[in-house]
Amino acid sequence: MSSALAQDLASLSASQAARLLQARELSAEALVQACIERYQAREPAVRAWRSHAAEAALAQARALDAGPLRGPLHGLPIGVKDLFDTRGLPSGYGSPIYAEHQSGHDAAAVALCRAAGAIVLGKTVTTEFATFHPGPTRNPHNPAHTPGGSSSGSAAAVAAGMVPLALGTQTAASIIRPAAYCGVVGFKPSFASIPRAGIKSLAESLDTVGAFGRSVADVALLTSVMASAPPWRALDHGGAPRIGLCRTPYWEHASPAAQQQLEACAARLSLAGAVLVEVSLPPEFDTLASVHDAIMCFEAWQALADERLNHAEALSEPLQALLRRASAIDFEQNRYNQQRVAAARARLPEVFAHCDLLLTPSACGEAELGMATGNPLFSRSWSALGLPSLHLPTGTGPSGLPLGVQLVGPAGSDLATLRGGQWVEHQLNRQKD
Amino acid sequence: MSSALAQDLASLSASQAARLLQARELSAEALVQACIERYQAREPAVRAWRSHAAEAALAQARALDAGPLRGPLHGLPIGVKDLFDTRGLPSGYGSPIYAEHQSGHDAAAVALCRAAGAIVLGKTVTTEFATFHPGPTRNPHNPAHTPGGSSSGSAAAVAAGMVPLALGTQTAASIIRPAAYCGVVGFKPSFASIPRAGIKSLAESLDTVGAFGRSVADVALLTSVMASAPPWRALDHGGAPRIGLCRTPYWEHASPAAQQQLEACAARLSLAGAVLVEVSLPPEFDTLASVHDAIMCFEAWQALADERLNHAEALSEPLQALLRRASAIDFEQNRYNQQRVAAARARLPEVFAHCDLLLTPSACGEAELGMATGNPLFSRSWSALGLPSLHLPTGTGPSGLPLGVQLVGPAGSDLATLRGGQWVEHQLNRQKD
Repeated sequence: MSSALAQDLASLSASQAARLLQARELSAEALVQACIERYQAREPAVRAWRSHAAEAALAQARALDAGPLRGPLHGLPIGVKDLFDTRGLPSGYGSPIYAEHQSGHDAAAVALCRAAGAIVLGKTVTTEFATFHPGPTRNPHNPAHTPGGSSSGSAAAVAAGMVPLALGTQTAASIIRPAAYCGVVGFKPSFASIPRAGIKSLAESLDTVGAFGRSVADVALLTSVMASAPPWRALDHGGAPRIGLCRTPYWEHASPAAQQQLEACAARLSLAGAVLVEVSLPPEFDTLASVHDAIMCFEAWQALADERLNHAEALSEPLQALLRRASAIDFEQNRYNQQRVAAARARLPEVFAHCDLLLTPSACGEAELGMATGNPLFSRSWSALGLPSLHLPTGTGPSGLPLGVQLVGPAGSDLATLRGGQWVEHQLNRQKD
Repeated sequence: MSSALAQDLASLSASQAARLLQARELSAEALVQACIERYQAREPAVRAWRSHAAEAALAQARALDAGPLRGPLHGLPIGVKDLFDTRGLPSGYGSPIYAEHQSGHDAAAVALCRAAGAIVLGKTVTTEFATFHPGPTRNPHNPAHTPGGSSSGSAAAVAAGMVPLALGTQTAASIIRPAAYCGVVGFKPSFASIPRAGIKSLAESLDTVGAFGRSVADVALLTSVMASAPPWRALDHGGAPRIGLCRTPYWEHASPAAQQQLEACAARLSLAGAVLVEVSLPPEFDTLASVHDAIMCFEAWQALADERLNHAEALSEPLQALLRRASAIDFEQNRYNQQRVAAARARLPEVFAHCDLLLTPSACGEAELGMATGNPLFSRSWSALGLPSLHLPTGTGPSGLPLGVQLVGPAGSDLATLRGGQWVEHQLNRQKD
């Protein structure tokens, strides 16, 4: 291992670290130790973790170093959003109702990561049941700003170098938005690519497990393990994807800097050889964000039946407000809303007729002041449709906080979306040099 | 209350009992007491229950009798399949791994039932994780025969009069088949009609919550509560449905008696005024049962990751065999299998072009000798497609055990399927007289 690497192990990308770990040129213990040191330095300001199992992680790292290679995540520390059940650690779902909860079992995605050699370094802060009431986490770039939510701790921990990889979930914008606000790569795969067993359910037709990392290769590596797919490592055997610049019906809600960043990115990719087309979404998309909101509210009202009926006093005011909105929606209205999603889905072949990926805003702009998790507007439609979505950081905005772009692929095209995303990432990094 | 009713409260249908309870002509305590007496008489032979909370249920019944009407299930005792988390009762999922498990929370469907006034009388036996390894339950009509699975205890408890209503789940045939074998009404609604939060996950794209009762009105009542719909009580304001007699590509696997029962039922309904057409399924359906099997295995392999990786020694041999089959299926193969389901789904408008409901076998025949849960063949396709399916008992076969028929509606037509089913039930009952 070069001394430059040794100096800053905690800043390695997961795929860089994985290469060294697989070659036994880096020990899991050294990597975990570097993450623990970063935790000690940054956690008091960032507050990304609900629990941090440093000693157990070190012991596990030593055992992995002494044994055979376990799998593609061998020796990599991971953070696990506190919405996943996790053996040996409390699983609080961001709610005081579950403050003492220990499931004693791993969620399926967590078990798959451990079997591939990952080391669970701890649980990361989630908002309350992955909704809008924030936890204590701060934006690592400026503690006066939100890290976004609901996977607040996972995004912030990766951004602050406290762990190279983290697990998250998205129901509205809970991976893409915190990835954007914290300036890391976030990937929400197609709906149902990754099993949800052992995750606290919020909205059944929407909840999707995903990944945070420092590069497209990182999130591809973690996603492939959780999806029981062969490791998606060698992504770069495709040419330039055809890019559809998609401003969406919500374009006016994007800040001038976010708009400018997206258009500049499109121009750069075109110069780099990508076919660029402009994509206008069909009219079925005009109100899709509000349809998503209604479905999410209704399904949350169903899924949180035990909590709202038996522990109402322990729910935050924002969650109670969400559930009050939901109580006005009934089964038939929800069925109609699902039909509206299906109508938009039926137009997707046209949307992707001349492009492989949509290039579209990730969020309204930089992370907002205060701890409110921010507007999920630019992810709601893609979450409703179950499309794979990738956030890539591109630079910073006027407040000095991260900005980036979102790439969205057709349903089921997780691997192709990541391949195209890696080409885009490569062009963006080249132009930084 | 008439003395005839008092004599046999435990045989009342849930909707009959609900009418009396709502009118305060029957006390919840008397009904629960009658169910407890039936339990004491029948449970030693039937073994339908994993836990039976007689005292708590009686206390709750007295409280309900003393208070205001709580909702459409006010005072009705229910059995809950031991795959649902349930407050105050162990939730063992049919596995020794969870023998001591107490979640402390109600699954959403259970919470919705309680909020509507239902009394949880206990947990009913499930096969291991709702797969094929049977529990101790016997067929109430003949203890040498299987009750079917995986919702073995729920079907048997309703059939034996130990409870008027019970909750179940279906991934392959786990509601329709035990309903058929035990001779009760079973309803599997459309996929995602009822929230699954708090249920042990087996196969995410398939698992569906449903209901057992003694009439179509019973399962409609319970389903509407769990689906957060207005109570589906007054079902009979439709005329005769158009019936599509559908022998399926698996017809030769139905016993002569099952075949004869289905055709006789079709003839009777036609005589009673239903338009009857013959429906041949398109070629996409020829192998749909085996596609369903492969999806179920792959998804179970994902969902049970913690158990197979950390508790392999506590899994039954049949479940280990299922998981071994699954390990040969990978992510891409599973995606292809899902596309094959989508291809069959795309042909459904043709299938239902000239009929409202398919009339099709529920199972291969009468309940088999021994405890193996029986062949799920005749439900796999409808489970894969997420279609609402209703089992209605029609009579008995050569072994003196129940036979019946299955009605299948288009996706999302839960209420219409129940309405049509009630018309069919009415004709069948009329001809019994």
